[in-house]
Amino acid sequence: MTLPQSGEFSLPMRVYIEDTDAGGIVYYVNYLKYFERARTEFMRSLGYEKPAFPDENLMFVVSEARVTYRSPARLDEWIRATACVTQMGAATLTFVQTAMRDSTCLAEGQVTLALVSSEHGRPRRIPTAMRQKITDLQG
Amino acid sequence: MTLPQSGEFSLPMRVYIEDTDAGGIVYYVNYLKYFERARTEFMRSLGYEKPAFPDENLMFVVSEARVTYRSPARLDEWIRATACVTQMGAATLTFVQTAMRDSTCLAEGQVTLALVSSEHGRPRRIPTAMRQKITDLQG
Amino acid sequence: MTLPQSGEFSLPMRVYIEDTDAGGIVYYVNYLKYFERARTEFMRSLGYEKPAFPDENLMFVVSEARVTYRSPARLDEWIRATACVTQMGAATLTFVQTAMRDSTCLAEGQVTLALVSSEHGRPRRIPTAMRQKITDLQG
Amino acid sequence: MTLPQSGEFSLPMRVYIEDTDAGGIVYYVNYLKYFERARTEFMRSLGYEKPAFPDENLMFVVSEARVTYRSPARLDEWIRATACVTQMGAATLTFVQTAMRDSTCLAEGQVTLALVSSEHGRPRRIPTAMRQKITDLQG
Repeated sequence: MTLPQSGEFSLPMRVYIEDTDAGGIVYYVNYLKYFERARTEFMRSLGYEKPAFPDENLMFVVSEARVTYRSPARLDEWIRATACVTQMGAATLTFVQTAMRDSTCLAEGQVTLALVSSEHGRPRRIPTAMRQKITDLQG
Repeated sequence: MTLPQSGEFSLPMRVYIEDTDAGGIVYYVNYLKYFERARTEFMRSLGYEKPAFPDENLMFVVSEARVTYRSPARLDEWIRATACVTQMGAATLTFVQTAMRDSTCLAEGQVTLALVSSEHGRPRRIPTAMRQKITDLQG
Repeated sequence: MTLPQSGEFSLPMRVYIEDTDAGGIVYYVNYLKYFERARTEFMRSLGYEKPAFPDENLMFVVSEARVTYRSPARLDEWIRATACVTQMGAATLTFVQTAMRDSTCLAEGQVTLALVSSEHGRPRRIPTAMRQKITDLQG
Repeated sequence: MTLPQSGEFSLPMRVYIEDTDAGGIVYYVNYLKYFERARTEFMRSLGYEKPAFPDENLMFVVSEARVTYRSPARLDEWIRATACVTQMGAATLTFVQTAMRDSTCLAEGQVTLALVSSEHGRPRRIPTAMRQKITDLQG
C-alpha cells in the first residue's frame, strides 16, 4: 500500500561533538542515527512507548537503508530529522526521511523496517491497530 | 578555586537504540557522551554558542574523566544528565556530573577540561569574562 | 567507467560490544563503519597512507550509501568486510561492499565517494595515478 | 589481592574516521572502546570465547572507569591498547590500561569490572578456573 506523504513527523536536535568526525562535519554514518531517532519518536507519538519492541514477542529490524548526502551539518547546529511512512507491506514499513537545517536538505533517505518475532526472527504481520493508526495519520 | 555546588545544570534526554549494547542496557561508554551534552548546553546557557571552541584560537580538551556506574539506564527511558563546575584553575574547569532517572542516580563522575590553543595545544588562561560568568552562576 | 568485479579487497575484524545494540546483534548503522574500514584499508593497500585526505587540499566525502541487511552479526564473531570498486567517474568512486561471516552474507551495499577540495567542497578530478592504480587492480 | 604488573596484554589497532571528532583527533570517549577491545582480547587469550558473558548466567559489567589523556591519537595512526589485571576481588577485576603510539602514552586509565548474574545483576564470585588463569599469567 502506497501512502500519501502527509503526516510528516519532525524531531529537532542538536549536533554534538560525538556526532562529528575529523573532516569537521557530522560523520555521515550518524545521519542514520538521526533518522532512527525521528522514526522512534514518530512511533512514540502514535502511543508506542517501546517503538523497537512493540510487543514482548515482536521487534522491528532494519532491512534496507539508503542515504543521499546533500550538504554537511556542523558542530553545534540545530537541525531536525523527519520521518514519513510511504509504504506499508504485510510485515514492513518504509519511511522516507530527511535531515534538515532550516530549509536546507542535508541528507535524505529511505529506510525499510521489517517486523519479526523476537525469538526466531521470522516476519510477523503488522498488528491491525498499528496499521490503522499509521493509515489514519497519513489520511 | 573550589566553587560551591549550586547552579547545577540539567539536560533531559531520551535513550535510543544507538546508545544501548548487547547487555540490553546503555553502553557504559555512552554516559561520557551524555555528560558532554550537559556540559555543552551548560556553556551554551552562559552564552557560548560554540562551547568546545569558544574562540577561533582556543579549544577545550578533556584531560581527565572518571565515571562510577550505579544502575543501568535502558532503552526508551527518559533520563537527564547534570553538570556542575566544582573547580576552576587557570586553564582548567572541573565538572561533577551525573546521569539520573527521576531520583535514581545511574552514573556519576568528574570531568576535567583544559583550555588550549587550537594551533599548538598549549594551555591558555580561561578568559576573564568566562570565569566571571561561571563564578556568578555558582554564587 | 564500469570496472570488472575482480580485485575484491577483504578486511577481517572482530565484533565488539561497542558494535552491538539492545537487540543483541550488531547495530545496523555500524555496518557502514565496517564498510568504511574495508575501503580505507583497500586504499592503503594501493599506497595511500591517508585514504580520506589523499592530498592536503583534497578529501573524499560519501555522497551516497545503501545497505541491505541479510542476517545479523553477533557479539564476538569474527567477520570480514569487503570492498570492490565498480564504477569510476571523473570525481567519484563507487564501491560494492559486503559484510560476511564465512560464506554467509550479513549485509551488502553500495557506497559512492566524491573527491572534493578541502577548502570549498567542490568536486575535483581523481588524480591520474590513483585512477591508474585502481584500473590496474581491477584488470 | 594485588597482582604484580607483569603479563601485560597488548592489542594493535588502526584509528579510523569513525573514531575521530571535529577537533581532528580521536574523540576522547573512544579510548574506553579501545581499552575494552584490549580487555576482551586478553580474556579471549585465556580461552574465554565470550569474554563479556563467560557463562550463560554471568556477565561482566563496568563499575568504574577512569582515563587520563596525555596526547591525542590522530586519523590513520597505528596504535595499541594494553590491559593488565592489577587487582582481583571476590567479584571484581581491576585493569590498568593504556593507549600507546610507539613509546608515547596517549591515554592511561583504570577500569573495574564486576561479575554479576545476568538475571538479577547481583555480584557473583569469579570462578576458580578464571582466577587461577589470571593469577598464573601474572606470576
